[in-house]
Amino acid sequence: MADPRFFLRAGPFSLDELAAVAEAELSRGDGARMFSDVSPLGGAGADHVSFLDNKKYVSEFMASSAGACVVHPDLASRAPEGMDLLLSPDPYRAYARIAAAFYPFPKPEAGISEGAVVADSAKTGDGCRIEPGAVIMDNAVIGRGNWIGANAVIGSGVVLGDDVIVGPGATLSHCIVGSRVMIHPGVRIGQDGFGFAMGPQGHLKVPQIGRVIVGNDVEIGANTTIDRGTGPDTIIGDGCKIDNLVQIAHNVQLGRGCIIVAQVGISGSTKLGDFVAAGGQVGFAGHLNVGAGAQVAAKSGVMRDIAPGMTVGGIPAQPIKEFWRQTALLQKLSRDSKPDRNKKP
Amino acid sequence: MADPRFFLRAGPFSLDELAAVAEAELSRGDGARMFSDVSPLGGAGADHVSFLDNKKYVSEFMASSAGACVVHPDLASRAPEGMDLLLSPDPYRAYARIAAAFYPFPKPEAGISEGAVVADSAKTGDGCRIEPGAVIMDNAVIGRGNWIGANAVIGSGVVLGDDVIVGPGATLSHCIVGSRVMIHPGVRIGQDGFGFAMGPQGHLKVPQIGRVIVGNDVEIGANTTIDRGTGPDTIIGDGCKIDNLVQIAHNVQLGRGCIIVAQVGISGSTKLGDFVAAGGQVGFAGHLNVGAGAQVAAKSGVMRDIAPGMTVGGIPAQPIKEFWRQTALLQKLSRDSKPDRNKKP
Amino acid sequence: MADPRFFLRAGPFSLDELAAVAEAELSRGDGARMFSDVSPLGGAGADHVSFLDNKKYVSEFMASSAGACVVHPDLASRAPEGMDLLLSPDPYRAYARIAAAFYPFPKPEAGISEGAVVADSAKTGDGCRIEPGAVIMDNAVIGRGNWIGANAVIGSGVVLGDDVIVGPGATLSHCIVGSRVMIHPGVRIGQDGFGFAMGPQGHLKVPQIGRVIVGNDVEIGANTTIDRGTGPDTIIGDGCKIDNLVQIAHNVQLGRGCIIVAQVGISGSTKLGDFVAAGGQVGFAGHLNVGAGAQVAAKSGVMRDIAPGMTVGGIPAQPIKEFWRQTALLQKLSRDSKPDRNKKP
Repeated sequence: MADPRFFLRAGPFSLDELAAVAEAELSRGDGARMFSDVSPLGGAGADHVSFLDNKKYVSEFMASSAGACVVHPDLASRAPEGMDLLLSPDPYRAYARIAAAFYPFPKPEAGISEGAVVADSAKTGDGCRIEPGAVIMDNAVIGRGNWIGANAVIGSGVVLGDDVIVGPGATLSHCIVGSRVMIHPGVRIGQDGFGFAMGPQGHLKVPQIGRVIVGNDVEIGANTTIDRGTGPDTIIGDGCKIDNLVQIAHNVQLGRGCIIVAQVGISGSTKLGDFVAAGGQVGFAGHLNVGAGAQVAAKSGVMRDIAPGMTVGGIPAQPIKEFWRQTALLQKLSRDSKPDRNKKP
Repeated sequence: MADPRFFLRAGPFSLDELAAVAEAELSRGDGARMFSDVSPLGGAGADHVSFLDNKKYVSEFMASSAGACVVHPDLASRAPEGMDLLLSPDPYRAYARIAAAFYPFPKPEAGISEGAVVADSAKTGDGCRIEPGAVIMDNAVIGRGNWIGANAVIGSGVVLGDDVIVGPGATLSHCIVGSRVMIHPGVRIGQDGFGFAMGPQGHLKVPQIGRVIVGNDVEIGANTTIDRGTGPDTIIGDGCKIDNLVQIAHNVQLGRGCIIVAQVGISGSTKLGDFVAAGGQVGFAGHLNVGAGAQVAAKSGVMRDIAPGMTVGGIPAQPIKEFWRQTALLQKLSRDSKPDRNKKP
Repeated sequence: MADPRFFLRAGPFSLDELAAVAEAELSRGDGARMFSDVSPLGGAGADHVSFLDNKKYVSEFMASSAGACVVHPDLASRAPEGMDLLLSPDPYRAYARIAAAFYPFPKPEAGISEGAVVADSAKTGDGCRIEPGAVIMDNAVIGRGNWIGANAVIGSGVVLGDDVIVGPGATLSHCIVGSRVMIHPGVRIGQDGFGFAMGPQGHLKVPQIGRVIVGNDVEIGANTTIDRGTGPDTIIGDGCKIDNLVQIAHNVQLGRGCIIVAQVGISGSTKLGDFVAAGGQVGFAGHLNVGAGAQVAAKSGVMRDIAPGMTVGGIPAQPIKEFWRQTALLQKLSRDSKPDRNKKP
């Protein structure tokens, strides 16, 4: 079970309750049976709920002592005897719902802590908690149920929707943020973009007079940076999930539901369509259009537009099959060129 | 126009005033005509000033309703009727000056805010603003007109010149910083470099007893890290512009006017000459010499010295033409090797 | 000498004292001779101790005016006349000890500063210093001699061992940290991992109910991020040294003594054995096993398990010799394909 110093567990819940939460079908077992926790397949006990999402783990599933398991209908027949079954076409999503029932996101007590500084002109909605050392500056407008972490800074005029979490040490300026947004520790939103009229007589700063607009249900990982626009805005669409240490430059636009893995960099004015996914450490050049549903393999360098739905990889990024073909070809040529392979012993 | 919640607009200004600010020549139009804002070519109105910097946008220029436009003399003949013209050999730089006239950098009211902590032994010059939660430690010496952001930390003995901006949540130690330096949120300057006497019995820390020296007119992007030297100093030359999430290791030296794009990493003791430019996510090995004016393509891995003025790319970095030649060759070999290309249908 | 605004120098020390500190053998010189500082070979004076660790610098060694030098026995014969010699099989480690004698790590005065916020339920051991603006939240347990930097945040329930340094602006939550750990400014430990049940109907957050466990004698560089586990813990073994801007995802396990250079990213659930070394900007895919003592060249992309002791490089990472062979082959093929090389002048 999770360390009680950090996590409060709810429950227990009956199997019927869990099936309802998970939007899953109880196919085997007693709906009234009580469960106290979630667990991975290995190590699970009779009062634990587990899940099987990846066929690689079928043997662990077959050997598991979990009292109940969420599983795809196609794999239900492999369940060991005595294991109750919740069927779902998307077992990981069903499991996520069950785990969230046992470990609901904590709701801190509303109030402004000792040592927080809230400007007189700032507005904070009902039910907000402002932790010690947090600073809310002039004319900021903060919705209901926000949780502003210790030593976070909400700059002048910033607007946050409802149920926004701003992690400790994060700093926001020049931005309008939606609801149910989770901003992790050390995130930087709204600072100047990197815009200069460059030249040998010195690089002259170009005023950055746009904003950052963050949609609803967005998550932004620790120490990620999102610069404000130069005049147009930088835009993060609804439901985007951004990992740690990502760089998003001025005027970038992300559509809905994009997945941006850690340490990705997106250069200025590049636009990603809905549900684009970029693997870790990918770099995008500036002023590109990346079509909806495109996927970019980790560590790629994207220098051209990508058509919707395409998967690319490599530096420069190419269709992923072409990347793999070239990689394999170079390996083969190298093997063939080894002098010792030409020797006849 | 820029969101008035975040930006205060100055003006209006006459065309004569703007020509003077921009160091541009008024070639067409009435010098007494008043303008109220800047705007991109598209969407600009009769009282807006726009600019054309890139030939790609000539058609937008020809169709623009901007009242006035900054343009290179060679393209002036393409201007639509009724558009006033300001001629400049460097239209983007001229535009930057005009934009800065309309949107001057804000000067906050001097004073030490509630919740800031300034050590008795620290010295702060005239006109400084210290935001809430900022901490100025023992013996720090801060020049005139500094703006220290909320929850920023200026460590013991740190020296800042005049008109320095330290963003919210940035932390400085063991450094001497020039004037007109802009340090964005979350920047880390002066912490220990990564120096160990490594071995199987454990990695023994080597004391890092140098400093970070930052010149004048430097900009350092959000969450960038600059470690102090091991004994020699880490040096950032005048006029360098460093983007977000850059890593600069101990003893690195940057000459004047270097451009370091986001997520670059520069390993220990590497020296960059004046006006070197490194694209996003470039990595430099340690102990290298990179000549003045060298350019490094995004995502490259630099393992050897680079001659002055050279442009390189790839992992390992090579002359950029050679990188492209190899990329094209591998693509061609791959195409030629496809079995279906050998089939005669 | 080091800038006295930032560093307090101890000493002077006799050569006998320094030999003892360094665990080196005094082979030439007067053990009673006094030394006042360390210095690089160039610029060293008669009362300075220097070191020679790299054969590349033998000529500087031969020309140095250092009063004493730590050197490998094999190179002692190259020393100039008048230079006292301390012999060590590991001169850099010996030098590190001497430098630490002259520049011992500062021990601040114990106490809780003005502007720090310590929850009533938190426990702090003897000799701790809590700098201004630091926040220690409910039920945190902090050992003896900790130094918590300005505006750092120690989250609820966090446990720190003895002699831990937490840099300014760092934030910790959901973690158990050993003793003699050095956490640099802006580090983020314990925030949610990047875990979602993804799908076109939106990406559903999976509760992250593990912790981060950090061993003893670990160093974690500025702005590095270490996410907590999903249920299992994220684990950093004893003696690991992690550089700046590194990303460590949920459930990652590092063995003892790993060296992780700046801007590396390690994806979820990947395990590194003892003393693995990863160069700058390396990326590891998820769910990999990297054997003890493996080494990964800078900028590599690791997509498969690595056997113990192996050295790999490239994207995708391969045995390093194979990477170099392929690089050289492609360069050769490119040269051979140049049209002008086929011309007979």
